Amino acid sequence: MQASTRSITAPKGFRAAGGAIGIKASGKPDLAIIVADDPCTAAAVFTRNKICSEPVKLGREHMRNGTLRAIVCNSGNANASMGQRGLDDAKAMCVAVAQFVGCEPMDVLACSTGKIGVALPIDAITAGIATIHSQIDVSDTADADAARAIMTTDLVPKSAIREVTLDDGDVTIGAVCKGSGMIAPNMATMLAFITTDADIDQPVLHEALTAAINAPASFNRISVDVDTSPSDTVAIMASGKSSAAPFTTKDGRFDKFVEALTELCRDLAYQIVADGEGATRVIRVAVRRASSEADAVRVGRTVADSPLVKTAVHGGDPNWGRITSAVGRSGAAFDPAKIVVELGNIVVYADGGPVDTDVAALEAIMQRKEVLIGVDLAAGDAATEILGCDLSREYITINADYST
Amino acid sequence: MQASTRSITAPKGFRAAGGAIGIKASGKPDLAIIVADDPCTAAAVFTRNKICSEPVKLGREHMRNGTLRAIVCNSGNANASMGQRGLDDAKAMCVAVAQFVGCEPMDVLACSTGKIGVALPIDAITAGIATIHSQIDVSDTADADAARAIMTTDLVPKSAIREVTLDDGDVTIGAVCKGSGMIAPNMATMLAFITTDADIDQPVLHEALTAAINAPASFNRISVDVDTSPSDTVAIMASGKSSAAPFTTKDGRFDKFVEALTELCRDLAYQIVADGEGATRVIRVAVRRASSEADAVRVGRTVADSPLVKTAVHGGDPNWGRITSAVGRSGAAFDPAKIVVELGNIVVYADGGPVDTDVAALEAIMQRKEVLIGVDLAAGDAATEILGCDLSREYITINADYST
Repeated sequence: MQASTRSITAPKGFRAAGGAIGIKASGKPDLAIIVADDPCTAAAVFTRNKICSEPVKLGREHMRNGTLRAIVCNSGNANASMGQRGLDDAKAMCVAVAQFVGCEPMDVLACSTGKIGVALPIDAITAGIATIHSQIDVSDTADADAARAIMTTDLVPKSAIREVTLDDGDVTIGAVCKGSGMIAPNMATMLAFITTDADIDQPVLHEALTAAINAPASFNRISVDVDTSPSDTVAIMASGKSSAAPFTTKDGRFDKFVEALTELCRDLAYQIVADGEGATRVIRVAVRRASSEADAVRVGRTVADSPLVKTAVHGGDPNWGRITSAVGRSGAAFDPAKIVVELGNIVVYADGGPVDTDVAALEAIMQRKEVLIGVDLAAGDAATEILGCDLSREYITINADYST
Repeated sequence: MQASTRSITAPKGFRAAGGAIGIKASGKPDLAIIVADDPCTAAAVFTRNKICSEPVKLGREHMRNGTLRAIVCNSGNANASMGQRGLDDAKAMCVAVAQFVGCEPMDVLACSTGKIGVALPIDAITAGIATIHSQIDVSDTADADAARAIMTTDLVPKSAIREVTLDDGDVTIGAVCKGSGMIAPNMATMLAFITTDADIDQPVLHEALTAAINAPASFNRISVDVDTSPSDTVAIMASGKSSAAPFTTKDGRFDKFVEALTELCRDLAYQIVADGEGATRVIRVAVRRASSEADAVRVGRTVADSPLVKTAVHGGDPNWGRITSAVGRSGAAFDPAKIVVELGNIVVYADGGPVDTDVAALEAIMQRKEVLIGVDLAAGDAATEILGCDLSREYITINADYST
C-alpha cells in the first residue's frame, strides 16, 4: 500500500494547505491546515500517555462540543512537557486559525509533533498560519502538501482514501497521517487527520472511529518501538455534504461506513509500520484462539516488540526460539503443550517441541518484505493481528545521532 | 566492579572445573561442573517464562528436596523448546554427573544456555562430563575456568565473592554467573551459581536468596533488552562447613548474611548489565516516592527499557522528553504536575514543565560510563533502582547477523 494522490480534500467540503514556515532548521515543510467550509461533526481519540502534550490537553477540551471547523498541525516541535507556556502556545495557534477561518478558537484542533521539551517559536507560527491559510485549496497538491508538512522522521508522506457506495449516494473518506518512531499507540496513535462528507451524528461517528482504530492491524495494533508518544491523536471531521442520507442508526449502511473507515485506518497503519524508523521489513503477528482479545493483543505485541525477534527478522534468521520465548513471557493464558507457532505457512513449533521443517523454505520466508508469524494459543476464540517492523542499525543511527 | 579472582571454590567444601568439550563450533569453553564435598542445603529460583526450558522443568523437580551435591552447566545450546527429547537429555546430564560424584541424579542441577530449539549433542556432553569432572579442583584457575565455560555472548567472565565476619566465625559466599542478551529477569535471571560455607536451614536460605535477588539494582532489577529467557536460573548451595554457628533464625547474624548475599548479587547484576550485548554505558534509574514497590519497578523498567531513552543515552543526548514520555506510559499512579525528573544530580523537569538547566553540564553527565536518571513520583514511600544499558548498532549486529 502507498500514499494515494487524493486524500483529505477529496470528500466534499474541505480545503487544505501545507508548507515551510521556518520551524525546522532543515527548511522542510512544517505547517499544515485543514479547513472545512462549514462546521463539522467531529470525533477524536488521544494518547493515553499520562504525561500528554499540551496540544492534547487543549484538544480534549476543544473536542467536548463534538464540533470542528479546522485542524492546524506543525511538525519539528511537539510542544510537549512544556507546562503553561505550552498550553498558551497551543491556544495561540487556535486563535490565529480561528481569526482567518471566521470561527471560534474552540472549533480548531491544534496538533504538534517533533522534539519534546522545547518551546514553540510561536510568533513564526502565527505568521506562518497567515501564509499557509492563504493557500488553502481543493487539489492533489493541497493534499500532498498537507501530508508532507506533518512529517518528522517519516521518509514518505502518508495518505489514503476510500469510497463507500450506497443506494442513496456515495460517501468519501480521506486522510493524511504521520508516524515513524515513538510508535506504540495506546487508544490513539501518532497523528492522523480524517475527513469525510458523510452526514453522521457525533456519537455514531465516535463509535465508528473507535471500531476502526481497534480493528486487527489498525492504528491501535501497530508498534515500531514500544514508546507511546505524548502527542498521539486521530481526529475525524464529517462535513455532511455527501448526497447520501444521514448515518444516524446502526444498520447495514453504518457497517459499510465503518468497514471503509477501518480499511482506511489499516491502510495508514501499514504505511506507518512500513516506514518505521530504520525498518526494512514489516512483521505481521497473527494471533488466534486466544482466551480474550486482551490476551491476543498481549501475545501479538510481545512478539512484535521483542528486540530479539525484530533483529532476527532483520537478519533473515528463522530463529523461532525467540518467538516462543516472547510468547512465554507475554503473560497470556495458554497451555505450552498445545500452542502452535508458524513462520509464514510453515509450522515450526507444536506439541511442546520443534517440528521438522525445510530450512531453505523458512529462510525464503524470512527474506520477504512482510514476515508473517502465526501463533495459535488453543485457549479460546479471540484473535487479532499486530503489525511491527524489524530493528536495524539505522534505528540506532536515527535515534542516537540526532536529537528528535 | 569486575570479576574477582576467587569465587565458587573459595567457600569451604566446593570444587569446580570448566573447559571445552565441543558443543560450540568456535571451540571455546562450554561445560562447567561445580561439586560439593558433601550434600548441601540448596535453594534456587527459576524463570517465570511460561515456555521454560527443559532443564528448568527438571531443575524444579530436583530442587524439591532442598538438597544439591553438584551443578552442571553447558553453554552453546539452551536445550529449550525441545519437548521430551530435551527432558531426556537434561536427565542424562544429571545421571552422568551423579555417576562420577557418587550421588543421586536428583541431587544434581543441570543447566543449559545458548541457542533455543536445537537438540543437545548429548553423547559429546556425557563424554565431556567425564573429562571435566576429572579436573575439578579448589583454585583460582578452577573458578575462572567455570566462569568462562558458561559464557555465551558475554564478552567477559563474571564472578564475585563476599566475606561475612561474625563473632563466632567467618562465612564466605562465592558465585559465577553469565548473561548478556535476553536479559529481563522475572523472578530469577540468566544463570548464576552461588556457593557458601554457611550452615543454614533450607527455608532460611531460600528467604535470603529471594531477598537478595529482589533488592534494588540486583538480579530482578536489571534489563538489557526486555526479553525474559526461558532458562533463567539462580541457584545457591550451602555446605555448612564454615566455623560460624548455624543460621537458623532471623537475627542480626542473618541480616549480615543477607546483606552480603545481596551485595554479591548486585555486584554480579552490575557485571551483566555492563556487559549487555552492545552496551557502552550503564543506565541507573532511581525511582523514589512511588505509591508501591510495583509502581517503582514499573516506572524504572519502562524508562530503562525504552528504546528511545537507550538510544539517547548511547548518543550522549540529554533528551529528557523521552524520559518523561516513558514515565507517562508506565501505568504507575502519580500526578504529572508533581513529579520531578533528574539527569545525574540536575533537575530537568518539575511543576509540569521544563527547568532551565546548564546544557553543557547535562551533556557532560550523558558522557559518563554510568548515566543516572532520577524520578521522584511524589506519590508514596516506595523506591527501587533498575539497571539497564544503552542500545547500540552492536546489539543489532550481535542479534541480526548471528543465530544465537
